[in-house]
Amino acid sequence: MTDNKNPDNKNTGNTNPVTVMGLGLMGSTLARAFLDAGHPTTVWNRSAAKAESLVASGATRAESAAGAFAASPLVVICLSVNQNVHDVLEGAGNAVAGRTVVNLTNGTPAQARELATAVTALGGEYVDGGIMAVPPMIAQPGALILYSGRETAFETHQATLEVLAEARYLGTDPGLAPLYDLALLTAMYGMLTGYYQATALIRTEGVKAAEFTPMVHAWVTAMMAGLPRAAEAIDSGEHATEVSSLANNQAAFPNLIEAAREQGVDTSLMEPVRALLDRSVAEGYGDDGLPRLTDLLSARP
Amino acid sequence: MTDNKNPDNKNTGNTNPVTVMGLGLMGSTLARAFLDAGHPTTVWNRSAAKAESLVASGATRAESAAGAFAASPLVVICLSVNQNVHDVLEGAGNAVAGRTVVNLTNGTPAQARELATAVTALGGEYVDGGIMAVPPMIAQPGALILYSGRETAFETHQATLEVLAEARYLGTDPGLAPLYDLALLTAMYGMLTGYYQATALIRTEGVKAAEFTPMVHAWVTAMMAGLPRAAEAIDSGEHATEVSSLANNQAAFPNLIEAAREQGVDTSLMEPVRALLDRSVAEGYGDDGLPRLTDLLSARP
Ligand SMILES: NC(=O)c1ccc[n+]([C@@H]2O[C@H](COP(=O)([O-])OP(=O)(O)OC[C@H]3O[C@@H](n4cnc5c(N)ncnc54)[C@H](OP(=O)(O)O)[C@@H]3O)[C@@H](O)[C@H]2O)c1
Ligand SMILES: NC(=O)c1ccc[n+]([C@@H]2O[C@H](COP(=O)([O-])OP(=O)(O)OC[C@H]3O[C@@H](n4cnc5c(N)ncnc54)[C@H](OP(=O)(O)O)[C@@H]3O)[C@@H](O)[C@H]2O)c1
Repeated sequence: MTDNKNPDNKNTGNTNPVTVMGLGLMGSTLARAFLDAGHPTTVWNRSAAKAESLVASGATRAESAAGAFAASPLVVICLSVNQNVHDVLEGAGNAVAGRTVVNLTNGTPAQARELATAVTALGGEYVDGGIMAVPPMIAQPGALILYSGRETAFETHQATLEVLAEARYLGTDPGLAPLYDLALLTAMYGMLTGYYQATALIRTEGVKAAEFTPMVHAWVTAMMAGLPRAAEAIDSGEHATEVSSLANNQAAFPNLIEAAREQGVDTSLMEPVRALLDRSVAEGYGDDGLPRLTDLLSARP
Repeated sequence: MTDNKNPDNKNTGNTNPVTVMGLGLMGSTLARAFLDAGHPTTVWNRSAAKAESLVASGATRAESAAGAFAASPLVVICLSVNQNVHDVLEGAGNAVAGRTVVNLTNGTPAQARELATAVTALGGEYVDGGIMAVPPMIAQPGALILYSGRETAFETHQATLEVLAEARYLGTDPGLAPLYDLALLTAMYGMLTGYYQATALIRTEGVKAAEFTPMVHAWVTAMMAGLPRAAEAIDSGEHATEVSSLANNQAAFPNLIEAAREQGVDTSLMEPVRALLDRSVAEGYGDDGLPRLTDLLSARP
């Protein structure tokens, strides 16, 4: 963990030039943060109009993908999907040589490794990144971007990247940042869909989400306090429990589904959880704690 | 919210007698907490052996369900399922008259209302409860039990019930406590299954759960900070967003499933989330924020 080197993010005379390619919701926010921090910023977008307000604020527009790479030793890319990044690299060709390419486009570990190979073949250095933030969080305390890939390239540009968010380096395998990113998003979708199901249930009796939400917040926070112990069980394979066995959870879970049905709430997100609990008991894990479910979802390495 | 009236839970000369029926993992913990707080405590369990260590600590054993009701004006019941509670009430018959029955067995709102009718018919007063704690949390700071049903009965016994956990009263409808309880459990299962899937994913690359878990904790906590705003959207029906639309989530979600498949992780819990996101866009909600999903799970009241 490293501190943001420029907490105020206002013109502090940072002189390292940076290019941002892709000026959608996220890319334009990244470019704006570099500009605000005083970095000479070159921008490029497939449809040129999106560059206009940034150019009005002092950014330089690149006329081509090759020009975008030529402009700065650090090129930050943020497009919809990684196929777009392959297309852009192809368009830029030799201009990629000698550049550090930091790709913040969301994708899979396998995609990141393919892009690393492609960039290396063009003579560039590849760093992948996963943005753990929505645009309004960029350049604010609490924002985090995970990085992996060429370590020296990351270190060279770390101070510049800290303008956007805390920059945390995970390792040389470029697949690590997208792996963590997708895993964190998976955990987030679990929490959020649990919350949406819970609010769908309580409002069938006229309870307001605003009234119920502080209770969810406190309860889920209390349950999250058990995660370090769950992690120990997952890492060690020691799943004995005195507290809440899979068999007990399997026995009680149908109440949740029955209550949801009685109240007219969709149970499609609950059914596979029930199936997983049933499977855990059928496979002989009934006396184990809930973290055994990780083993049922993917074999221990 | 009320404070625990006896934070030390040690013999303080509480003289209100209480009966606990059901001495499983949870019921025996509840009985132990009353004993430790100095309450004259009568215990009953179907299989009598489970009462022994409590009797050795000073509890009185009731020889029958009728005797258990006769012993105390407050009778706390904690059995596996609510059908067991019906059976016990039938066995006790007239002995229920004049008693406050606090049923902490997990069940649905409809089951709680049926039991309230049954207890009232026998001349008793019914309070339902939902225990938001595992046994080691009982009588510790942070433990919460939700109650609903006969308000005067709850108020009469609130100080005694506070021995177990913070006692929060939700309203006269006995179905409210189980409704909140099941909704909170639903939210918890969402968070936990999200976490198990996330750890299943990261360990395919040899990352330890212990290393990854603090990051999940921080990220999910950061995302939970958005729940009050989500609650506003859910209550008002105003789902416009500048941050993260359902269409964007629908577009990116297949990356999660693809990465899980590539890494050999079970996707059965993710598939219905993808289907829900697809349905949200198909039904014309693509520009809305994620909290619109609550509407897709149950119609607005
Ligand atoms: N928004 C968020 O909250 C958020 C958070 C974390 C991560 N991310 C990730 O950040 C990336 C960008 O997201 P966003 O919100 O900025 O999306 P967006 O607003 O939809 O912008 C997409 C960008 O990709 C460009 N693009 C699409 N297809 C292209 C192609 N074939 N060739 C060249 N450029 C192409 C678009 O250019 P045009 O303008 O020419 O269409 C635009 O600049 C995504 O991978 C997303 O998952 C977003
Ligand atoms: N443990 C937890 O973490 C937890 C947390 C919150 C809520 N709860 C809820 O608390 C309740 C009890 O849970 P627990 O963990 O204590 O379960 P448990 O250890 O399995 O104990 C079940 C109890 O129910 C009794 N019982 C079962 N069938 C019966 C019948 N037909 N007639 C009379 N008694 C019967 C058992 O008596 P025998 O000894 O004779 O079998 C035993 O006393 C459940 O509804 C559970 O969902 C538990």
